[in-house]
Amino acid sequence: MKVFVIGATGQIGKHLISLLQNSEKHTVRAMVRKEVQAEEMKQQGLDVVVASLEGTVEDITTAAKGCDAIVFTAGSGGNTGYDKTLLIDLDGAVKAVEAAERAGINRFIIVSALQAHNRANWNEGMIPYYVAKHYADRMVEHSKLAYTIIRPGGLLNEPGTGKVQASENLEKGSIPREDVAKTIYASLDAHHTFHKSFDLISGQKLIHDALNHV
Amino acid sequence: MKVFVIGATGQIGKHLISLLQNSEKHTVRAMVRKEVQAEEMKQQGLDVVVASLEGTVEDITTAAKGCDAIVFTAGSGGNTGYDKTLLIDLDGAVKAVEAAERAGINRFIIVSALQAHNRANWNEGMIPYYVAKHYADRMVEHSKLAYTIIRPGGLLNEPGTGKVQASENLEKGSIPREDVAKTIYASLDAHHTFHKSFDLISGQKLIHDALNHV
Repeated sequence: MKVFVIGATGQIGKHLISLLQNSEKHTVRAMVRKEVQAEEMKQQGLDVVVASLEGTVEDITTAAKGCDAIVFTAGSGGNTGYDKTLLIDLDGAVKAVEAAERAGINRFIIVSALQAHNRANWNEGMIPYYVAKHYADRMVEHSKLAYTIIRPGGLLNEPGTGKVQASENLEKGSIPREDVAKTIYASLDAHHTFHKSFDLISGQKLIHDALNHV
Repeated sequence: MKVFVIGATGQIGKHLISLLQNSEKHTVRAMVRKEVQAEEMKQQGLDVVVASLEGTVEDITTAAKGCDAIVFTAGSGGNTGYDKTLLIDLDGAVKAVEAAERAGINRFIIVSALQAHNRANWNEGMIPYYVAKHYADRMVEHSKLAYTIIRPGGLLNEPGTGKVQASENLEKGSIPREDVAKTIYASLDAHHTFHKSFDLISGQKLIHDALNHV
Protein backbone atom coordinates (compact mmCIF):
# COMPACT_ATOMS: atom_id res chain seq x y z
CA MET A 1 0.00 0.00 0.00
CA LYS A 2 1.00 3.57 -0.65
CA VAL A 3 0.01 5.38 2.54
CA PHE A 4 -0.88 9.07 2.58
CA VAL A 5 0.01 10.52 6.00
CA ILE A 6 -1.72 13.71 7.15
CA GLY A 7 0.04 15.08 10.20
CA ALA A 8 3.45 13.87 9.06
CA THR A 9 5.34 16.43 11.11
CA GLY A 10 3.54 15.56 14.33
CA GLN A 11 5.08 13.29 16.92
CA ILE A 12 3.05 10.21 16.05
CA GLY A 13 3.37 11.11 12.37
CA LYS A 14 7.17 11.07 12.52
CA HIS A 15 7.22 7.58 14.04
CA LEU A 16 4.78 6.38 11.41
CA ILE A 17 6.75 7.88 8.53
CA SER A 18 9.83 6.11 9.81
CA LEU A 19 8.03 2.75 10.00
CA LEU A 20 6.66 3.19 6.48
CA GLN A 21 10.03 4.22 5.06
CA ASN A 22 11.57 1.03 6.43
CA SER A 23 8.64 -1.16 5.41
CA GLU A 24 8.82 -3.96 2.87
CA LYS A 25 5.04 -3.94 2.43
CA HIS A 26 4.17 -0.28 2.24
CA THR A 27 5.38 3.02 0.88
CA VAL A 28 4.53 6.52 2.07
CA ARG A 29 3.58 9.98 0.89
CA ALA A 30 3.64 12.73 3.50
CA MET A 31 1.36 15.76 3.45
CA VAL A 32 2.86 18.87 5.07
CA ARG A 33 1.62 22.41 5.41
CA LYS A 34 4.77 24.39 4.62
CA GLU A 35 7.14 24.38 1.67
CA VAL A 36 10.14 24.48 4.04
CA GLN A 37 8.97 21.28 5.77
CA ALA A 38 8.58 19.65 2.36
CA GLU A 39 12.13 20.59 1.36
CA GLU A 40 13.58 19.05 4.53
CA MET A 41 11.69 15.82 4.04
CA LYS A 42 12.51 15.57 0.35
CA GLN A 43 16.17 15.66 1.29
CA GLN A 44 15.50 12.52 3.34
CA GLY A 45 14.20 10.88 0.18
CA LEU A 46 10.54 11.15 1.07
CA ASP A 47 7.60 11.59 -1.29
CA VAL A 48 6.08 14.82 0.05
CA VAL A 49 3.24 17.10 -1.02
CA VAL A 50 2.31 20.50 0.33
CA ALA A 51 -1.36 20.97 1.21
CA SER A 52 -3.32 22.47 4.08
CA LEU A 53 -6.25 21.13 6.08
CA GLU A 54 -7.56 24.70 5.97
CA GLY A 55 -7.54 24.54 2.17
CA THR A 56 -10.07 22.87 -0.06
CA VAL A 57 -11.05 19.22 -0.27
CA GLU A 58 -9.94 19.39 -3.90
CA ASP A 59 -6.39 20.30 -2.82
CA ILE A 60 -6.22 17.34 -0.46
CA THR A 61 -7.79 15.03 -3.04
CA THR A 62 -5.16 16.00 -5.59
CA ALA A 63 -2.40 15.55 -3.04
CA ALA A 64 -3.61 12.06 -2.07
CA LYS A 65 -4.38 10.76 -5.55
CA GLY A 66 -2.75 7.43 -6.30
CA CYS A 67 -2.41 6.40 -2.67
CA ASP A 68 -4.19 3.34 -1.23
CA ALA A 69 -4.77 4.48 2.34
CA ILE A 70 -5.03 7.74 4.28
CA VAL A 71 -3.87 8.11 7.87
CA PHE A 72 -5.11 11.19 9.70
CA THR A 73 -2.88 11.87 12.68
CA ALA A 74 -2.94 15.66 12.53
CA GLY A 75 -4.04 17.82 15.43
CA SER A 76 -4.17 21.51 16.15
CA GLY A 77 -2.10 20.93 19.28
CA GLY A 78 -2.35 22.41 22.73
CA ASN A 79 -0.92 25.83 21.89
CA THR A 80 -3.63 27.06 19.56
CA GLY A 81 -7.15 28.28 20.22
CA TYR A 82 -10.39 26.35 19.87
CA ASP A 83 -10.88 28.02 16.49
CA LYS A 84 -8.11 25.72 15.24
CA THR A 85 -9.70 22.78 17.06
CA LEU A 86 -12.79 23.35 14.93
CA LEU A 87 -10.80 23.94 11.74
CA ILE A 88 -8.23 21.15 12.04
CA ASP A 89 -9.40 18.43 14.44
CA LEU A 90 -12.98 18.51 13.16
CA ASP A 91 -13.33 20.06 9.71
CA GLY A 92 -9.81 19.05 8.66
CA ALA A 93 -10.49 15.43 9.54
CA VAL A 94 -13.75 15.42 7.60
CA LYS A 95 -12.07 17.07 4.63
CA ALA A 96 -9.62 14.16 4.69
CA VAL A 97 -12.56 11.73 4.64
CA GLU A 98 -14.12 13.54 1.70
CA ALA A 99 -10.76 13.62 -0.10
CA ALA A 100 -10.44 9.86 0.40
CA GLU A 101 -13.91 9.34 -1.08
CA ARG A 102 -13.20 11.60 -4.04
CA ALA A 103 -9.78 10.08 -4.72
CA GLY A 104 -11.23 6.57 -4.55
CA ILE A 105 -9.10 5.67 -1.53
CA ASN A 106 -11.04 3.18 0.55
CA ARG A 107 -8.79 2.63 3.56
CA PHE A 108 -8.84 5.34 6.24
CA ILE A 109 -7.29 5.41 9.70
CA ILE A 110 -7.77 8.28 12.15
CA VAL A 111 -6.15 8.88 15.52
CA SER A 112 -8.75 10.00 18.03
CA ALA A 113 -8.70 10.10 21.84
CA LEU A 114 -9.58 7.55 24.53
CA GLN A 115 -13.35 7.50 25.18
CA ALA A 116 -14.04 10.20 22.60
CA HIS A 117 -17.23 8.27 21.83
CA ASN A 118 -18.44 8.55 25.40
CA ARG A 119 -19.38 12.04 26.65
CA ALA A 120 -19.59 10.89 30.27
CA ASN A 121 -15.85 10.11 30.28
CA TRP A 122 -14.48 13.28 28.73
CA ASN A 123 -11.71 14.96 30.72
CA GLU A 124 -13.04 17.99 32.51
CA GLY A 125 -11.22 21.02 31.07
CA MET A 126 -10.69 19.39 27.66
CA ILE A 127 -14.34 18.95 26.79
CA PRO A 128 -14.36 21.26 23.74
CA TYR A 129 -11.46 19.23 22.30
CA TYR A 130 -13.38 15.99 22.83
CA VAL A 131 -16.41 17.51 21.10
CA ALA A 132 -14.32 18.09 17.98
CA LYS A 133 -12.82 14.58 18.07
CA HIS A 134 -16.21 13.03 18.78
CA TYR A 135 -17.91 14.51 15.74
CA ALA A 136 -14.93 13.90 13.49
CA ASP A 137 -15.17 10.23 14.49
CA ARG A 138 -18.93 10.16 13.96
CA MET A 139 -18.51 11.57 10.46
CA VAL A 140 -15.87 8.93 9.74
CA GLU A 141 -18.30 6.25 10.89
CA HIS A 142 -21.01 7.72 8.64
CA SER A 143 -18.68 7.56 5.63
CA LYS A 144 -18.49 4.64 3.22
CA LEU A 145 -14.77 4.14 3.89
CA ALA A 146 -13.11 1.07 5.37
CA TYR A 147 -12.19 3.07 8.44
CA THR A 148 -10.38 2.36 11.68
CA ILE A 149 -10.67 4.82 14.56
CA ILE A 150 -7.83 4.43 17.05
CA ARG A 151 -8.44 6.18 20.39
CA PRO A 152 -5.20 6.22 22.39
CA GLY A 153 -4.92 7.15 26.05
CA GLY A 154 -2.45 9.72 27.41
CA LEU A 155 0.40 10.06 24.93
CA LEU A 156 3.95 9.50 26.20
CA ASN A 157 7.26 10.24 24.54
CA GLU A 158 9.05 7.21 25.97
CA PRO A 159 10.12 4.35 23.67
CA GLY A 160 7.43 1.90 22.65
CA THR A 161 7.14 -1.56 24.16
CA GLY A 162 5.21 -3.08 21.27
CA LYS A 163 2.61 -4.30 23.75
CA VAL A 164 -0.85 -2.83 24.03
CA GLN A 165 -4.41 -3.28 25.14
CA ALA A 166 -7.10 -2.50 22.55
CA SER A 167 -10.82 -2.64 23.22
CA GLU A 168 -14.04 -0.76 22.62
CA ASN A 169 -13.99 0.64 26.14
CA LEU A 170 -10.94 0.93 28.37
CA GLU A 171 -10.29 2.64 31.67
CA LYS A 172 -7.87 5.56 31.70
CA GLY A 173 -4.33 4.71 30.71
CA SER A 174 -1.37 5.91 28.70
CA ILE A 175 0.71 4.74 25.76
CA PRO A 176 3.96 5.77 24.07
CA ARG A 177 3.44 7.61 20.79
CA GLU A 178 5.73 5.07 19.15
CA ASP A 179 3.26 2.29 20.01
CA VAL A 180 0.39 4.29 18.58
CA ALA A 181 2.35 4.60 15.34
CA LYS A 182 3.07 0.85 15.37
CA THR A 183 -0.63 0.16 15.90
CA ILE A 184 -1.55 2.34 12.94
CA TYR A 185 1.07 0.55 10.86
CA ALA A 186 -0.17 -2.90 11.88
CA SER A 187 -3.81 -1.89 11.28
CA LEU A 188 -3.26 -0.83 7.68
CA ASP A 189 -3.90 -4.26 6.18
CA ALA A 190 -5.48 -5.94 9.22
CA HIS A 191 -8.96 -6.57 7.86
CA HIS A 192 -10.27 -7.33 11.32
CA THR A 193 -9.82 -3.62 12.19
CA PHE A 194 -11.90 -2.36 9.23
CA HIS A 195 -15.08 -0.53 10.31
CA LYS A 196 -13.87 -0.64 13.92
CA SER A 197 -13.24 1.95 16.61
CA PHE A 198 -11.28 1.12 19.75
CA ASP A 199 -9.50 2.57 22.77
CA LEU A 200 -5.75 1.89 22.99
CA ILE A 201 -3.37 1.91 25.96
CA SER A 202 -0.21 0.08 26.93
CA GLY A 203 -0.81 -3.56 27.81
CA GLN A 204 0.37 -7.14 27.71
CA LYS A 205 -0.44 -8.23 24.19
CA LEU A 206 1.61 -7.94 21.05
CA ILE A 207 -0.01 -5.35 18.78
CA HIS A 208 -0.87 -7.91 16.11
CA ASP A 209 -2.66 -10.11 18.64
CA ALA A 210 -4.45 -7.20 20.26
CA LEU A 211 -5.78 -6.10 16.87
CA ASN A 212 -7.18 -9.57 16.25
CA HIS A 213 -9.54 -9.10 19.18
CA VAL A 214 -10.93 -5.59 18.71
CA MET B 1 -48.48 20.66 19.44
CA LYS B 2 -46.63 21.35 22.65
CA VAL B 3 -43.37 22.93 21.51
CA PHE B 4 -40.18 22.71 23.55
CA VAL B 5 -38.05 25.78 22.84
CA ILE B 6 -34.30 25.61 23.50
CA GLY B 7 -32.83 29.09 23.35
CA ALA B 8 -35.97 30.71 24.75
CA THR B 9 -34.12 33.76 26.07
CA GLY B 10 -32.42 34.48 22.75
CA GLN B 11 -33.73 37.11 20.36
CA ILE B 12 -35.35 34.68 17.94
CA GLY B 13 -36.48 32.57 20.89
CA LYS B 14 -38.38 35.48 22.45
CA HIS B 15 -40.30 36.14 19.23
CA LEU B 16 -41.12 32.46 18.93
CA ILE B 17 -42.29 32.16 22.54
CA SER B 18 -44.60 35.10 21.96
CA LEU B 19 -46.06 33.53 18.80
CA LEU B 20 -46.60 30.22 20.61
CA GLN B 21 -48.18 31.89 23.64
CA ASN B 22 -50.71 33.58 21.37
CA SER B 23 -51.29 30.50 19.23
CA GLU B 24 -54.59 28.65 18.97
CA LYS B 25 -52.85 25.57 17.57
CA HIS B 26 -49.79 25.19 19.75
CA THR B 27 -48.57 25.53 23.31
CA VAL B 28 -45.04 26.08 24.56
CA ARG B 29 -42.52 24.97 27.14
CA ALA B 30 -39.37 27.05 27.42
CA MET B 31 -36.00 25.67 28.47
CA VAL B 32 -33.75 28.17 30.22
CA ARG B 33 -30.36 27.87 31.83
CA LYS B 34 -30.84 29.89 35.00
CA GLU B 35 -33.36 29.70 37.80
CA VAL B 36 -33.76 33.48 37.78
CA GLN B 37 -34.77 33.41 34.09
CA ALA B 38 -37.28 30.69 34.88
CA GLU B 39 -38.84 32.75 37.69
CA GLU B 40 -39.31 35.76 35.42
CA MET B 41 -40.95 33.69 32.70
CA LYS B 42 -43.18 31.82 35.12
CA GLN B 43 -44.55 35.15 36.24
CA GLN B 44 -45.63 35.67 32.63
CA GLY B 45 -47.60 32.44 32.86
CA LEU B 46 -45.11 30.35 30.87
CA ASP B 47 -44.35 26.66 31.29
CA VAL B 48 -40.60 26.78 31.98
CA VAL B 49 -37.94 24.23 32.86
CA VAL B 50 -34.36 24.80 33.92
CA ALA B 51 -31.76 22.72 32.06
CA SER B 52 -28.39 23.34 30.47
CA LEU B 53 -26.99 22.35 27.08
CA GLU B 54 -23.75 21.71 28.94
CA GLY B 55 -25.56 19.20 31.12
CA THR B 56 -26.49 15.65 30.24
CA VAL B 57 -28.78 14.38 27.50
CA GLU B 58 -30.84 12.81 30.31
CA ASP B 59 -31.48 16.26 31.83
CA ILE B 60 -32.70 17.62 28.51
CA THR B 61 -34.76 14.50 27.84
CA THR B 62 -36.52 14.85 31.18
CA ALA B 63 -37.12 18.55 30.56
CA ALA B 64 -38.64 17.91 27.12
CA LYS B 65 -40.76 14.89 27.98
CA GLY B 66 -44.39 15.22 26.96
CA CYS B 67 -43.72 17.78 24.24
CA ASP B 68 -44.43 17.09 20.56
CA ALA B 69 -41.70 19.16 18.92
CA ILE B 70 -38.31 20.62 19.80
CA VAL B 71 -37.03 23.90 18.40
CA PHE B 72 -33.31 24.54 18.80
CA THR B 73 -32.61 28.24 18.44
CA ALA B 74 -29.85 28.50 21.03
CA GLY B 75 -26.42 29.85 20.22
CA SER B 76 -23.31 30.62 22.19
CA GLY B 77 -23.40 34.17 20.83
CA GLY B 78 -20.67 36.47 19.64
CA ASN B 79 -19.22 37.33 23.05
CA THR B 80 -17.98 33.90 24.08
CA GLY B 81 -14.99 31.87 22.93
CA TYR B 82 -14.91 29.04 20.44
CA ASP B 83 -14.94 26.61 23.36
CA LYS B 84 -18.59 27.57 23.80
CA THR B 85 -19.16 27.30 20.05
CA LEU B 86 -18.10 23.66 20.35
CA LEU B 87 -20.10 23.07 23.54
CA ILE B 88 -23.34 24.86 22.62
CA ASP B 89 -23.68 25.28 18.87
CA LEU B 90 -22.37 21.81 18.10
CA ASP B 91 -22.58 19.43 21.05
CA GLY B 92 -25.58 21.22 22.58
CA ALA B 93 -27.51 20.92 19.34
CA VAL B 94 -26.73 17.21 19.05
CA LYS B 95 -27.68 16.64 22.69
CA ALA B 96 -31.05 18.19 21.79
CA VAL B 97 -31.37 15.72 18.90
CA GLU B 98 -30.55 12.82 21.20
CA ALA B 99 -32.99 14.10 23.81
CA ALA B 100 -35.71 14.26 21.16
CA GLU B 101 -35.00 10.67 20.16
CA ARG B 102 -35.00 9.47 23.78
CA ALA B 103 -38.16 11.37 24.68
CA GLY B 104 -39.95 10.03 21.59
CA ILE B 105 -40.35 13.52 20.12
CA ASN B 106 -40.28 13.20 16.37
CA ARG B 107 -40.50 16.81 15.17
CA PHE B 108 -37.28 18.85 15.33
CA ILE B 109 -36.48 22.30 13.99
CA ILE B 110 -33.03 23.88 14.20
CA VAL B 111 -31.90 27.38 13.31
CA SER B 112 -28.65 27.24 11.39
CA ALA B 113 -26.91 29.83 9.19
CA LEU B 114 -27.15 30.69 5.49
CA GLN B 115 -25.01 28.33 3.39
CA ALA B 116 -23.79 26.39 6.44
CA HIS B 117 -23.94 23.30 4.20
CA ASN B 118 -21.54 24.83 1.70
CA ARG B 119 -17.93 25.34 2.85
CA ALA B 120 -17.07 27.47 -0.18
CA ASN B 121 -19.54 30.15 0.94
CA TRP B 122 -18.57 30.47 4.60
CA ASN B 123 -17.86 34.03 5.74
CA GLU B 124 -14.15 34.59 6.09
CA GLY B 125 -13.49 35.29 9.77
CA MET B 126 -16.46 33.23 10.96
CA ILE B 127 -15.33 29.90 9.59
CA PRO B 128 -14.96 28.12 12.96
CA TYR B 129 -18.56 29.09 13.75
CA TYR B 130 -19.74 27.66 10.43
CA VAL B 131 -17.85 24.44 11.15
CA ALA B 132 -19.87 23.98 14.34
CA LYS B 133 -23.17 24.78 12.62
CA HIS B 134 -22.29 22.56 9.64
CA TYR B 135 -21.68 19.45 11.72
CA ALA B 136 -24.65 20.08 13.99
CA ASP B 137 -26.78 20.17 10.84
CA ARG B 138 -25.18 17.03 9.44
CA MET B 139 -25.89 15.17 12.67
CA VAL B 140 -29.50 16.35 12.52
CA GLU B 141 -29.74 15.03 8.96
CA HIS B 142 -28.28 11.70 10.08
CA SER B 143 -30.92 11.40 12.81
CA LYS B 144 -34.23 9.64 12.41
CA LEU B 145 -36.20 12.76 13.33
CA ALA B 146 -38.66 14.65 11.14
CA TYR B 147 -36.27 17.59 11.02
CA THR B 148 -36.28 21.00 9.40
CA ILE B 149 -33.04 22.96 9.19
CA ILE B 150 -33.65 26.68 8.68
CA ARG B 151 -30.58 28.63 7.57
CA PRO B 152 -31.30 32.36 7.83
CA GLY B 153 -29.11 35.09 6.36
CA GLY B 154 -27.88 38.10 8.34
CA LEU B 155 -30.18 38.60 11.32
CA LEU B 156 -31.83 42.01 11.75
CA ASN B 157 -33.71 43.45 14.70
CA GLU B 158 -36.21 45.40 12.62
CA PRO B 159 -39.88 44.35 12.57
CA GLY B 160 -40.78 41.39 10.36
CA THR B 161 -42.52 41.82 7.01
CA GLY B 162 -43.94 38.30 6.89
CA LYS B 163 -42.43 37.89 3.43
CA VAL B 164 -39.45 35.67 2.74
CA GLN B 165 -37.48 33.73 0.18
CA ALA B 166 -36.70 30.10 1.08
CA SER B 167 -34.62 27.79 -1.05
CA GLU B 168 -31.86 25.20 -0.87
CA ASN B 169 -29.29 27.75 -2.04
CA LEU B 170 -29.65 31.50 -1.83
CA GLU B 171 -27.26 34.36 -2.39
CA LYS B 172 -26.32 36.48 0.59
CA GLY B 173 -29.18 38.35 2.18
CA SER B 174 -30.68 39.33 5.50
CA ILE B 175 -33.90 38.81 7.41
CA PRO B 176 -35.54 40.20 10.56
CA ARG B 177 -35.37 37.83 13.52
CA GLU B 178 -39.14 38.15 13.83
CA ASP B 179 -39.55 36.61 10.37
CA VAL B 180 -37.24 33.73 11.30
CA ALA B 181 -39.46 33.07 14.32
CA LYS B 182 -42.57 33.22 12.12
CA THR B 183 -40.98 30.77 9.71
CA ILE B 184 -40.20 28.35 12.54
CA TYR B 185 -43.77 28.71 13.76
CA ALA B 186 -45.24 28.11 10.30
CA SER B 187 -42.94 25.12 9.73
CA LEU B 188 -44.02 23.24 12.83
CA ASP B 189 -46.89 21.41 11.17
CA ALA B 190 -45.98 22.08 7.54
CA HIS B 191 -45.29 18.54 6.39
CA HIS B 192 -43.63 19.78 3.23
CA THR B 193 -40.75 21.09 5.37
CA PHE B 194 -40.07 17.73 7.05
CA HIS B 195 -36.64 16.28 6.22
CA LYS B 196 -35.74 19.56 4.51
CA SER B 197 -32.94 22.11 4.89
CA PHE B 198 -33.15 25.55 3.32
CA ASP B 199 -31.65 29.03 3.26
CA LEU B 200 -33.96 31.86 4.32
CA ILE B 201 -33.83 35.61 3.60
CA SER B 202 -36.36 38.40 3.20
CA GLY B 203 -38.34 38.13 -0.02
CA GLN B 204 -41.62 38.56 -1.83
CA LYS B 205 -43.58 35.49 -0.78
CA LEU B 206 -45.79 34.96 2.22
CA ILE B 207 -44.07 32.51 4.58
CA HIS B 208 -46.71 29.83 4.11
CA ASP B 209 -46.30 29.97 0.33
CA ALA B 210 -42.53 30.03 0.50
CA LEU B 211 -42.54 26.91 2.69
CA ASN B 212 -44.67 25.10 0.14
CA HIS B 213 -41.83 25.36 -2.35
CA VAL B 214 -38.75 24.39 -0.37
